[in-house]
Amino acid sequence: MAAAEKDDARHREKMAKRKSAQDAEVSSKTVEKGLLIVHTGKGKGKSTAAWGLVLRALGRGKRIGVVQFGKGAWETGERKALETFGDRVVWHTLGEGFTWETQDRARDVAAAEKAWAQAKALLADPSFNLIVFDELNIALRYDHLPLADVVETLRNKRPDLHVVVTGRNAKPELIEAADLVTDMTPVKHHFAAGVKAQEGIEF
Amino acid sequence: MAAAEKDDARHREKMAKRKSAQDAEVSSKTVEKGLLIVHTGKGKGKSTAAWGLVLRALGRGKRIGVVQFGKGAWETGERKALETFGDRVVWHTLGEGFTWETQDRARDVAAAEKAWAQAKALLADPSFNLIVFDELNIALRYDHLPLADVVETLRNKRPDLHVVVTGRNAKPELIEAADLVTDMTPVKHHFAAGVKAQEGIEF
Repeated sequence: MAAAEKDDARHREKMAKRKSAQDAEVSSKTVEKGLLIVHTGKGKGKSTAAWGLVLRALGRGKRIGVVQFGKGAWETGERKALETFGDRVVWHTLGEGFTWETQDRARDVAAAEKAWAQAKALLADPSFNLIVFDELNIALRYDHLPLADVVETLRNKRPDLHVVVTGRNAKPELIEAADLVTDMTPVKHHFAAGVKAQEGIEF
Repeated sequence: MAAAEKDDARHREKMAKRKSAQDAEVSSKTVEKGLLIVHTGKGKGKSTAAWGLVLRALGRGKRIGVVQFGKGAWETGERKALETFGDRVVWHTLGEGFTWETQDRARDVAAAEKAWAQAKALLADPSFNLIVFDELNIALRYDHLPLADVVETLRNKRPDLHVVVTGRNAKPELIEAADLVTDMTPVKHHFAAGVKAQEGIEF
């Protein structure tokens, strides 16, 4: 057998083993479950990946709710694009922006409480399959909301409902309650090279 | 002054300082530039965050191209949802699936080369503002494509074009060429609890 043929045979064997391990792993997963998903970390992509999930769910005929706990002033590209899907996406922006924008703790707390009341209303509505609580981690980090109440409410969500929570510095109690947690870790950032936020990419 | 008022005053002062630092940082970023973005790491959200960027860009009136180097067989929710935007999204799935599915290296290389030819055609078309090369990192990792050619081509892209490359194990040479790199790091995964891939979340 020539060297190249041996290589090919070895490759086929290795890949066949991997495929069989992969297949066995996939078939061992049988539970259907609405997931509590957390996107945290200092890197880009936490909210962006949530919008990707919204898009994927829309393609599967699902209905989606969004409550934004921050960035209230921004009219973002993602929100505009999602208007295309009419009332299949219900979007509430109730945050007043980050706390260093408002410099008024009482106002921040009031805004977070209003957003959380809206969040609870969406959680109680059985028409939603996926709900995104964008930047909820920020409100929890600054103690604008009672952590125990939020975690308890998310633990008691409808079993088939998917919920995504975004924002850096996710609380350990929330991570403990979650099914899927990803840390978006910055490796390299263009701001360091003086490049500004780009339309269509960052807003 | 009462303790609560002192706390409020301290908070206002701290937040005012942070806001001024934040404002100064934002105004120091002046360069407009099409970004080369890499989503890598072992966690979830690499492709998903790319679809979030596509959605955001659509909301800003941009035109988007996608070449998928893997997962050819899957009819995904995100692709179906993006059909809503007509020819503003051009989508090519040219991968034949992961190499452990095919067990045939020559076929994998041929598929990657075909996908890369399509990628080059999109890069040469000035109508696109954002192009996603989904799972290109996998093709590079398995040496299905010549790394130097790919990196050189991406370095020489149109200056105002945004390109997103996804997939785990991004090559150091690609990270070096990129403007923005995020590592999606797994913290917790529901597969470990026997929960299977959920429609609308994972496909």
